[in-house]
Amino acid sequence: MKLTGVFAPIPTPFDQDDRPDTNRLCAALAKWIARPLTGFVLLGSNGEAVLLDEFESDRLIVAAREAIPSDRPFIVGTGRESTQATIRATKRAAEHGADVVLVRTPGFFKSQMTNAAFVRHYTAVADASLVPVLLYNFTALTGVNMLPAAVIELAAHPNIVGMKESGGDIAQITEVVANTPAGFQMLAGALSSFYAALCVGCVGGVLAPACVVTEACMRLFELTQEGRHDEARRLQHHLMPIAKLLGGAGYGIPGLKAALDVIGYDVGIPRPPLAPAPEAAFEALRAAIVALEDRFHEPAAR
Amino acid sequence: MKLTGVFAPIPTPFDQDDRPDTNRLCAALAKWIARPLTGFVLLGSNGEAVLLDEFESDRLIVAAREAIPSDRPFIVGTGRESTQATIRATKRAAEHGADVVLVRTPGFFKSQMTNAAFVRHYTAVADASLVPVLLYNFTALTGVNMLPAAVIELAAHPNIVGMKESGGDIAQITEVVANTPAGFQMLAGALSSFYAALCVGCVGGVLAPACVVTEACMRLFELTQEGRHDEARRLQHHLMPIAKLLGGAGYGIPGLKAALDVIGYDVGIPRPPLAPAPEAAFEALRAAIVALEDRFHEPAAR
Amino acid sequence: MKLTGVFAPIPTPFDQDDRPDTNRLCAALAKWIARPLTGFVLLGSNGEAVLLDEFESDRLIVAAREAIPSDRPFIVGTGRESTQATIRATKRAAEHGADVVLVRTPGFFKSQMTNAAFVRHYTAVADASLVPVLLYNFTALTGVNMLPAAVIELAAHPNIVGMKESGGDIAQITEVVANTPAGFQMLAGALSSFYAALCVGCVGGVLAPACVVTEACMRLFELTQEGRHDEARRLQHHLMPIAKLLGGAGYGIPGLKAALDVIGYDVGIPRPPLAPAPEAAFEALRAAIVALEDRFHEPAAR
Amino acid sequence: MKLTGVFAPIPTPFDQDDRPDTNRLCAALAKWIARPLTGFVLLGSNGEAVLLDEFESDRLIVAAREAIPSDRPFIVGTGRESTQATIRATKRAAEHGADVVLVRTPGFFKSQMTNAAFVRHYTAVADASLVPVLLYNFTALTGVNMLPAAVIELAAHPNIVGMKESGGDIAQITEVVANTPAGFQMLAGALSSFYAALCVGCVGGVLAPACVVTEACMRLFELTQEGRHDEARRLQHHLMPIAKLLGGAGYGIPGLKAALDVIGYDVGIPRPPLAPAPEAAFEALRAAIVALEDRFHEPAAR
Repeated sequence: MKLTGVFAPIPTPFDQDDRPDTNRLCAALAKWIARPLTGFVLLGSNGEAVLLDEFESDRLIVAAREAIPSDRPFIVGTGRESTQATIRATKRAAEHGADVVLVRTPGFFKSQMTNAAFVRHYTAVADASLVPVLLYNFTALTGVNMLPAAVIELAAHPNIVGMKESGGDIAQITEVVANTPAGFQMLAGALSSFYAALCVGCVGGVLAPACVVTEACMRLFELTQEGRHDEARRLQHHLMPIAKLLGGAGYGIPGLKAALDVIGYDVGIPRPPLAPAPEAAFEALRAAIVALEDRFHEPAAR
Repeated sequence: MKLTGVFAPIPTPFDQDDRPDTNRLCAALAKWIARPLTGFVLLGSNGEAVLLDEFESDRLIVAAREAIPSDRPFIVGTGRESTQATIRATKRAAEHGADVVLVRTPGFFKSQMTNAAFVRHYTAVADASLVPVLLYNFTALTGVNMLPAAVIELAAHPNIVGMKESGGDIAQITEVVANTPAGFQMLAGALSSFYAALCVGCVGGVLAPACVVTEACMRLFELTQEGRHDEARRLQHHLMPIAKLLGGAGYGIPGLKAALDVIGYDVGIPRPPLAPAPEAAFEALRAAIVALEDRFHEPAAR
Repeated sequence: MKLTGVFAPIPTPFDQDDRPDTNRLCAALAKWIARPLTGFVLLGSNGEAVLLDEFESDRLIVAAREAIPSDRPFIVGTGRESTQATIRATKRAAEHGADVVLVRTPGFFKSQMTNAAFVRHYTAVADASLVPVLLYNFTALTGVNMLPAAVIELAAHPNIVGMKESGGDIAQITEVVANTPAGFQMLAGALSSFYAALCVGCVGGVLAPACVVTEACMRLFELTQEGRHDEARRLQHHLMPIAKLLGGAGYGIPGLKAALDVIGYDVGIPRPPLAPAPEAAFEALRAAIVALEDRFHEPAAR
Repeated sequence: MKLTGVFAPIPTPFDQDDRPDTNRLCAALAKWIARPLTGFVLLGSNGEAVLLDEFESDRLIVAAREAIPSDRPFIVGTGRESTQATIRATKRAAEHGADVVLVRTPGFFKSQMTNAAFVRHYTAVADASLVPVLLYNFTALTGVNMLPAAVIELAAHPNIVGMKESGGDIAQITEVVANTPAGFQMLAGALSSFYAALCVGCVGGVLAPACVVTEACMRLFELTQEGRHDEARRLQHHLMPIAKLLGGAGYGIPGLKAALDVIGYDVGIPRPPLAPAPEAAFEALRAAIVALEDRFHEPAAR
């Protein structure tokens, strides 16, 4: 299962009654599928997965699976706090057609989350999973940091095929890449350090802004692949404003949904306790998207 | 609903197959009920609530409700990440007999958890709840800090009767107590600062070590109530070793289950990814319990 | 050397040319000496000690020593980053008449500041010092936390007589008090947790707000000493606004100088890169001081 | 003043009596000068500058200036906590022959160190300096983070020619490079993210390991300059062990002095409170240096 390229972490649309709206999800997916995306991640952090129950999760997986062509990798987030629940969610996702599962670190009991705990957890999940497993470290949200030592040990498991690292600590990413087999696929999770992550050895990224400025994200990937580093560096520079606006310290998920509204996607507002983005976010995002389009004389988004 | 006193946050026993074991829960509850505890908290952080699914939670509530006498407050943790799921869990807990619900702050989307988000979330929950609501701030686990400004605003809600603050920032506790009505009941969550918290205005505590050294915790509360501050201070000093061993930076939930094993409770081991406490924990806890008993010439635990 | 009571950490006045102004220092000291303060700390954090050179420090010590009566403990801050410089500053302070030195932890090379490093550093300083030494932990400024284990070991040194702990972690304070000899004097550094700190065993405090609302700070100390805990608690509550405004997360040193300006002390503005407090600080501080006076029907400051 | 390349931050040798040893400094400099280093930084963090007094600093500058050829940029660290002292140190360094000064952010009064404070501080220093000024951000040691907004504003000052950023937050580095003029020279401070920093637009680095594995550091720079990214990435991977051992979370300055001892430099041990590196550090460093040499079939160090 090759994961080289740019993946979009799909947001979850909710209807008027705060229920997941699979119709709007499929309509949006149809638009994303027409754009140059390598594949899709459902029920990631940006999919508000922690705000969904198991039934809602299943419904969304089934709907997305039908919408996504079989030649585009369909990755589903199945991380839960308990090992048992993670295994159950992982099995159901596979039964519903996930190609790969993306398993966020448990993080509630922070001081207990040692390297050994991560190794036990992921080994149990990977042993039980019917599809390949991606590790997933997102310290800014979970409050725990799965260190290279644990990742390097887990990379030897035949059913663990790679990792999404959402943090921007490029030294940590480098240490993992330098000490795992060539087949262990490292995906970056932050657009603001995407070019640097590719340089040090990531094979691609799962980037929230790729839902919005898809073409620019894909071009950054391709420029780097082709060794056109000066152009890649410049494009990374141009992407900084939108990366910042949509990043964790920016407008977050409400901002992602606002940006999608700006470019004509109908994905609604976040589920409470998340609130819709403020009006200022819409303006700033519109300006950043337009500025990016202007720079490249071509649509950054459609 | 008066919450003055010492509450035990009940751990959840699991059986050989990693399923909640209501029989062992009820047997342990029978022992705790015979000890001087004001009331009980089920499905708190120490109850490994985040590792349980909704069905398991319901079963545990039903079992505990039958075991706990109606004159002892029965508090149930119902915090979830989404407002909707929190409301549903809150309603079910009330239907199953909870006297009060304890609602941990959502904390996954950290940068979005503003004062306004907390106020919206808790207002919606308290509006919908059939029983009184306790706020619950536990920064060390959630990674978010609900500041006094939000708490002070929420204290005006007729269905929000108090708060559990698990952090040891005594200034923050003081600021809340100083700016909320007399009826807003503040409960401390950390034994290591319990005496100080009572001094500045907490009405009691929900203390993991109260499951183990129940009598000493209750005596610390009573000494403070009676104005016997010199004795209270000394007792607080004597409780520091066990407070540290069972605290977040100590052995945590595995340590609590180990300590209960040491004193003859049968509550098993934690659910993975949590691991059983190491052998050193058992030894250190046994020594600390014995030292405390020796000092007081009476059983600290039975 | 008994350090029981309330100490004022004296700010350093600068003249128009950004030089320390010993005349204004002595004029202000004369006013403080007339108020109920146990003693004085010169060249503490609030004295902007890290912004002064060695000559300036010496001049200020000499001037203050002449102004302060011999029956009021005169404590001088002598912490430097190197052990050698700390010893030199300590010796000079003693020669110039300091009764006690207050030695802040070195903190620049954070990862190197182990318990062992602190023990070596303070042992060398205490061995060399001609006057008693107070340890000084201020994590919010230094970025390092000298843990109880190091303090407990150092408390055995005959020339180390106590500690100023500026953090509000009441459990850490309790652990130190519980494990050091009765003669080891613990002083609190934060007004916002002063009452709690006294409850758990501090013998007094070095409190920036004691420069401003001296009488209220001293009364809080006395009420606690006399076992009048209900009154003490209420007074602590009333002191929260000013504690917050002058605390580290408030207006800091610029705020202290602003508050002193409000009550008629002439101590000027901070040394750059510190900037004078904004106008809003003056207003907020004036309001807080007046509110405190109103509550007690007596001047909180003169 | 072009700063493109690899700079060595020179450690300060101390003699038996804990005094700076200019003879040993000059002997070591002679060896470094013979190696492919673009230039030298004296009195940086690795030079233990915060442990030196003003007289010692001056003596070291004078000695190093004589030893270093005029065609190799000679950069001197002159950051102090007060603006005034920084200006004085900056002027003295220029008088003693510094080509450029490297001015670390003040960081003691953390909550006061706003963007505005940084802009005022550096503007005053740059206005007064007779030589070009480099900004210097080192959050891990100072506890403050000078954000891109402040840097971008300061980059317009004609006497501020660049910045050393010792943190590994590649997004922050990218944001600065993307928003400053081409002539604003960004230097990386961490070997573990050096290649990535060069990719996003740094013109070089000031790297402690460049004192030890000079040739490998310089080659990493050159490979990136020449667009040989695959080789550069591999070399970065090979440099990770030594980068980690000498980094802030590794053995720090004691480790740097140990590594220099391993390769035959005589720079002694650190000044207290820093302690010599443990024996394990020597072994680990020796192994890492040998492994690097083996990989490249050529001396990584001489």
